[in-house]
Amino acid sequence: MSRLEIVGVEGIGEIHPGDDLAGLIATAAQAQPFGLQDRDVLVVTQKIVSKAEDRLVRIDPDDPRGHQPVVDAETVRVLRRRGDLVITETTHGFVCANAGVDLSNVDQGWAALLPVDSDRSARRIRDGIRARAGVEVAVIVSDTFGRTWRRGLTDVAIGCAGIGAVVDLKGTTDDRGRELQVTEVAVVDELASAAELVMGKASGIPVAIVRGVDPAWLRTGNVREEIVRAPHEDLFR
Amino acid sequence: MSRLEIVGVEGIGEIHPGDDLAGLIATAAQAQPFGLQDRDVLVVTQKIVSKAEDRLVRIDPDDPRGHQPVVDAETVRVLRRRGDLVITETTHGFVCANAGVDLSNVDQGWAALLPVDSDRSARRIRDGIRARAGVEVAVIVSDTFGRTWRRGLTDVAIGCAGIGAVVDLKGTTDDRGRELQVTEVAVVDELASAAELVMGKASGIPVAIVRGVDPAWLRTGNVREEIVRAPHEDLFR
Repeated sequence: MSRLEIVGVEGIGEIHPGDDLAGLIATAAQAQPFGLQDRDVLVVTQKIVSKAEDRLVRIDPDDPRGHQPVVDAETVRVLRRRGDLVITETTHGFVCANAGVDLSNVDQGWAALLPVDSDRSARRIRDGIRARAGVEVAVIVSDTFGRTWRRGLTDVAIGCAGIGAVVDLKGTTDDRGRELQVTEVAVVDELASAAELVMGKASGIPVAIVRGVDPAWLRTGNVREEIVRAPHEDLFR
Repeated sequence: MSRLEIVGVEGIGEIHPGDDLAGLIATAAQAQPFGLQDRDVLVVTQKIVSKAEDRLVRIDPDDPRGHQPVVDAETVRVLRRRGDLVITETTHGFVCANAGVDLSNVDQGWAALLPVDSDRSARRIRDGIRARAGVEVAVIVSDTFGRTWRRGLTDVAIGCAGIGAVVDLKGTTDDRGRELQVTEVAVVDELASAAELVMGKASGIPVAIVRGVDPAWLRTGNVREEIVRAPHEDLFR
């Protein structure tokens, strides 16, 4: 039977710059009845990664532009602007609102930036959990992005380690024995979305464990190279 | 503990025009050890809905344009074209490749179109399962779409019933007691993505059960009104 289980990890608490995030996650995950096992996928929200990595910046209280200068510094290209909403391409290559700069769940007067390199952040958490708990997991760092064409936000992966970002099913056959045309599935984005369903926005659950993913997906992976589309490849830039 | 379980429903078999899809799904789901319960969310792939609703059309073998005339008939606007790839706005308002017309898992010489009204299809399956199995479930009809900015495909909802498409968390507070800014989460898209992880493309599992979703989401819902963004609201059309 093909079956996945997704469990929110509680009890991680407030994260501060310099905290040993891998250690805190491993301890909280292992303290739960669900435990933590080899081949689990851990989905970790960007906010606690940014806090642990000290990606917090002060907003100048005397600047009438508010946090806009912070957004500008993280932006390489503005794609669209409507009122307060700015759709940006970030220094990482992500296209999202306000360059991923976020004011929620941080102290008043501060903003949280995206990690410098979320794939590296994911690798560091994965390595730390292996070292501290002796468990071989995959890690996805997730964030909440809007989309073109569709209303509502969904969580996507901004970094991963120990799992392929895109699983290429090209060359496999459909149930007529015919070759399938395009089936490159962004499994890390689907896993980030799945995890969001148990995390919510204000529930204080920043990590989820997904158990039961296809072991064939658990290889070296990288959001930046596998998922981020170069501007010249994109039909809408 | 916040926990979701996702299970693929096997044994549904080949679907033909006129089949009682709700009955076939209910029988297969109830035959499994996981069973089918009130408040489960059933994710049903578009392909079997289109087949049951006889949305299959012949491709004229003498037409050198192949299935392009079929795509044209489903298209209200072409957004971009590169080689064989056409990004279209469909008659339903979806933006996707080739107007959702699909040649995989259908007989040679035929194409499958999207359901005429996937929200209505979802309602019909939901009502049918209530009538046949006495179980009150939510239903999502899913399809596999590409995205701007990001490589790889993900599954999204093209119709739903018995569940809100977008859950509005505006007005709830973050862990600082401050009001969250934008947290309208497209939970049906996240559920469609989550379900895809147990279905795969060539595995012959066209339905998944998701158990454990927040009961507050189980209300009247509609992809067309809640998720499809009108062209004039969209920053990229």
